[in-house]
Amino acid sequence: MGKVEIVLNSLPMSGGDGPNSYSKNSHLQRRTTSLVKETIDKLILEKLNAKTLISDSNTFHIADLGCATGPNTFFLVDDIIKSVETSLRKSNSSKPEFLVFFNDLPQNDFNTLFTSLPQDRSYFAVGVPGSFYGRVLPQSSVHMVVTVGATHWLSSVPKEVLDKPSKAWNKGKVHYSNAAEEVVKAYRDQFGRDMEKFLEARAKEIVSGGLLVVGMCGIPKGMPFSNLADSIMYTSMADVLTQMQSQGLISEEQVDTFNIPIYSASPEEVTVLVEKNGCFTVASMELMNPTAWLKRPMNVEDVRHWMVCIKATMGSLFINHFGEHLLDEIFDRLTAKLVGLTEKIESSYREKVMLFFALQRK
Amino acid sequence: MGKVEIVLNSLPMSGGDGPNSYSKNSHLQRRTTSLVKETIDKLILEKLNAKTLISDSNTFHIADLGCATGPNTFFLVDDIIKSVETSLRKSNSSKPEFLVFFNDLPQNDFNTLFTSLPQDRSYFAVGVPGSFYGRVLPQSSVHMVVTVGATHWLSSVPKEVLDKPSKAWNKGKVHYSNAAEEVVKAYRDQFGRDMEKFLEARAKEIVSGGLLVVGMCGIPKGMPFSNLADSIMYTSMADVLTQMQSQGLISEEQVDTFNIPIYSASPEEVTVLVEKNGCFTVASMELMNPTAWLKRPMNVEDVRHWMVCIKATMGSLFINHFGEHLLDEIFDRLTAKLVGLTEKIESSYREKVMLFFALQRK
Repeated sequence: MGKVEIVLNSLPMSGGDGPNSYSKNSHLQRRTTSLVKETIDKLILEKLNAKTLISDSNTFHIADLGCATGPNTFFLVDDIIKSVETSLRKSNSSKPEFLVFFNDLPQNDFNTLFTSLPQDRSYFAVGVPGSFYGRVLPQSSVHMVVTVGATHWLSSVPKEVLDKPSKAWNKGKVHYSNAAEEVVKAYRDQFGRDMEKFLEARAKEIVSGGLLVVGMCGIPKGMPFSNLADSIMYTSMADVLTQMQSQGLISEEQVDTFNIPIYSASPEEVTVLVEKNGCFTVASMELMNPTAWLKRPMNVEDVRHWMVCIKATMGSLFINHFGEHLLDEIFDRLTAKLVGLTEKIESSYREKVMLFFALQRK
Repeated sequence: MGKVEIVLNSLPMSGGDGPNSYSKNSHLQRRTTSLVKETIDKLILEKLNAKTLISDSNTFHIADLGCATGPNTFFLVDDIIKSVETSLRKSNSSKPEFLVFFNDLPQNDFNTLFTSLPQDRSYFAVGVPGSFYGRVLPQSSVHMVVTVGATHWLSSVPKEVLDKPSKAWNKGKVHYSNAAEEVVKAYRDQFGRDMEKFLEARAKEIVSGGLLVVGMCGIPKGMPFSNLADSIMYTSMADVLTQMQSQGLISEEQVDTFNIPIYSASPEEVTVLVEKNGCFTVASMELMNPTAWLKRPMNVEDVRHWMVCIKATMGSLFINHFGEHLLDEIFDRLTAKLVGLTEKIESSYREKVMLFFALQRK
């Protein structure tokens, strides 16, 4: 159990820039980034007093938490810089310098991130190794923090779901979807503790008047997770693993102790946590449609592409638990299964499943 | 020629933490770091007004330029932090936070650096990919910059020494030691241009009153490089390469176009460059004895150990030029050759060959 927790605490995206890497297979995340661009632009222009914030140093500090290996983080940062420059031009300020903190876990492939930094970038780039559930930057050192597609990753699998005598023991499942209420509660409580730590750390790091912008997995309040397309994926994962167990490829214990530490939050529960923290005002809190492929009927290629992205983001979780030699086998079976469920996926709830919120440091 | 320059501009120390890595074979550099510790302590206590420098933010910013993969950089940073804390205690200031910028070329193995960061460190750590011959940090963003064992690396091989029709064409040699006066001049001019850019960038980055501390290869003014122990190494390298050429293992052109872009500066020539820059006062400028093994007679094991360290620092230069398959062959031959020259090495000049200087930003 200890081992499982350690592994999950240090889960990186797939490194390098090869055909299975995160950097080559993060198009869905890219679309999410595009989606939030307009909202972020508006926030910067309306809420952020960039001129006052940088008055002392004439340097604007941005942090992207959970940046992975790029390139999405570079697009996001470019958009933010352009908006801040526009905002400063409107207030007749001189052009500032920009410092961007790219944060991810120490096990992230920073070598790939650093060697793929845009050559013609208009900012100073630094890498920050560390979990964003703790402090990663000095006090009052950053004007704008963004994190897209990262804070739904819990700091670890809730320990109760790995505890055999517990009612939250999540036997034969890989997620809280369709699981016992105790499992759902264990995930929800873990998210609450993690988000508390996250907000506490950011409250120290962000200057008064600075912005914290978050895009993560979301869900309408009160909706059971089983309504969502991702639920079909998690159920299929469990089916694949159980099948592989029955074929003697993996053990029962391996299946029972495998859980994906991802949680989808509702705007209402995040609002409660923000109020409890007390250091931020809510500038925006909404559920968005996450991906472009919602606009047309889903096809088999969409499913395959979805699985390539999932493999790049969750692959190391499977590698750490089942071994590298089974990764392709698991995802080949999973993709085959989901391709047969295209209609079911299409008819499931896939609309407002991205939670976007922006907080301003008091 | 273009290719050679590109390669040299992006020369990293050997990555990882395996038996041939820089992180496992940088003991000589470690000793150098210990040597400058006392001098740095004294400078911080006597010259640096830490209390005033950090008054606004209560965060002290340190940069180590050319940090490689550790662990020497961690010892150095720890020493500096302890000295700054002592200095602040004396002025009854509250304990500040520390932010450390670890800089090296983008091709440096930052993954190894980040995963080997001390768990119990008392500072926020960030990595900064980029050449220190240009800007790597925002304006007035750092209170103390150190660089040990890095600024003797030129930004590239001087282009004249690769130019066949030129008088500086450095045929059959790997360094300016024992070379034509035109070769020496080409190296010296390159160092001058590089140090100018280095000082210009640091002048922008370091706050008024901040310190820039440099340890690098040095030489007394007017002494020919051929007096130094390193000269025997460079001559032996050329001998080994010529021998391998005659055996058909490498081509004549490969030998003639291979040059090690390392320059040893005198205090006097650096002083001239600092005065020309105009933004710093000289707080310290001296030649030091670089290594502990000077204090007893040199033996064969010392030579072997020396070569292991040289292989870890210069290995990628040889790999890029001659191919990975020849690295061990070259260093085996070189070590065998130098082991036979132990007495000659011992009788050569090895005393004041580390240049240490500290500059204070006006």
